[in-house]
Amino acid sequence: MIKVVFFDLDDTIVDTTKLAEMARRNAIENMVRHGLPVDFDTAYQELLELISEYGSNFSRHFDYLLRRLDLPNNPKWIAAGVISYHNTKFAYLRTVKGVRQVLLDLQRSGYRLGIITDGDPIKQWEKILRLELDEYFGGVFISDHLGVKKPHPKIFRKALRKMGVEPGEAIMVGDRLYSDIYGAKQVGMRTVWFKYGKYADRELEYLDYADFTISSLEELPEILRGLKLEEESEGGSDKEVHAD
Amino acid sequence: MIKVVFFDLDDTIVDTTKLAEMARRNAIENMVRHGLPVDFDTAYQELLELISEYGSNFSRHFDYLLRRLDLPNNPKWIAAGVISYHNTKFAYLRTVKGVRQVLLDLQRSGYRLGIITDGDPIKQWEKILRLELDEYFGGVFISDHLGVKKPHPKIFRKALRKMGVEPGEAIMVGDRLYSDIYGAKQVGMRTVWFKYGKYADRELEYLDYADFTISSLEELPEILRGLKLEEESEGGSDKEVHAD
Repeated sequence: MIKVVFFDLDDTIVDTTKLAEMARRNAIENMVRHGLPVDFDTAYQELLELISEYGSNFSRHFDYLLRRLDLPNNPKWIAAGVISYHNTKFAYLRTVKGVRQVLLDLQRSGYRLGIITDGDPIKQWEKILRLELDEYFGGVFISDHLGVKKPHPKIFRKALRKMGVEPGEAIMVGDRLYSDIYGAKQVGMRTVWFKYGKYADRELEYLDYADFTISSLEELPEILRGLKLEEESEGGSDKEVHAD
Repeated sequence: MIKVVFFDLDDTIVDTTKLAEMARRNAIENMVRHGLPVDFDTAYQELLELISEYGSNFSRHFDYLLRRLDLPNNPKWIAAGVISYHNTKFAYLRTVKGVRQVLLDLQRSGYRLGIITDGDPIKQWEKILRLELDEYFGGVFISDHLGVKKPHPKIFRKALRKMGVEPGEAIMVGDRLYSDIYGAKQVGMRTVWFKYGKYADRELEYLDYADFTISSLEELPEILRGLKLEEESEGGSDKEVHAD
């Protein structure tokens, strides 16, 4: 019987990718506004290339952007980018559509909820606290604390142990087939792939590890009701067998 | 004749110290609110001690605060501190009383304005741009770019050269007797000590380098009018001499 529902954070609970795109666009716009001598499209494309090469870790992107554009290292332009980037991230941080209602539904149905996520622990907690989501979750597990990344089993096992459940009593919901779905399945959990955002058509070689696929989180309560009914009917037939 | 008025940035143009204090208080308050198992006063005093030992550079303060309080490194508490710290810094960034009116007055009277400041160039530009102060200033000179700190003469000489004036044609306004006043005087500029904030009673051994002392920026236009009259009357007697 499922007792705990685990969620990935980015692009499952929090609408991270959409926000990051908005923040980057606004950053470039403000840099151009403050004198960056390049048109918006050129600068934005260069930034996207840079991010795909260096990863989305933010700290030195605007710095490197100027180098790539053969421009002097002008702190005014960088500051203009940083301001708009941060303002956007603070003002437009949002949950994925339907999240709060689903979390509430699941809690009311008696499920305990957890988060299993990669990323910088302080930044991940910033998102959770800014959105006031911490009340919903009985446990937040961030892989960096253990020196691993999903799909490493260590983070999943720790989450199960701390929540006091067996793998068969937990289900993992996440947008990434590799880190979330393959990772959770490896330790024996049920899995729900949330086909959403930039990973909606990637890592499909791990599709077999998904027990369910949803395109809206609102489908989740129905899946859990289905699993419960299934187990109850199995439990029922077990009893009949024992009664014999 | 004075042609350029240079200002220090922190605690002269921007009310930095007041803001930092507010931000730190709000940070501790939010950490306690999110479960930091220490009372406000204990945590706040510890933070102030830490800052006086490690300097006000922010990045690892909350981290170290937990260590000093013998508490586990809980990213939720750190995130709570970081959020309130940043929210406060963004929401309450203010100019020192009277700044905008004075800058406008000086511009109207034909003076060109500049900033000579220490600090991280991007962070300094962030303050200038967030407060939309950049329109007032013909030059912003940040010592970090040159690998020095005020009172090193290099930063003052560069500012003079870039603004195209001789030392005798410039006046420096700042809250620190050592870095601003002694520094500017060393290269031959006039100096106005703005007796304000936490340096209002420090570094008094450099008081002799201040040509003027003010406790409100609103006294500045009057000082400049006085200097102008003085120079005109001197210029007048010069002419009479030459006419002989």
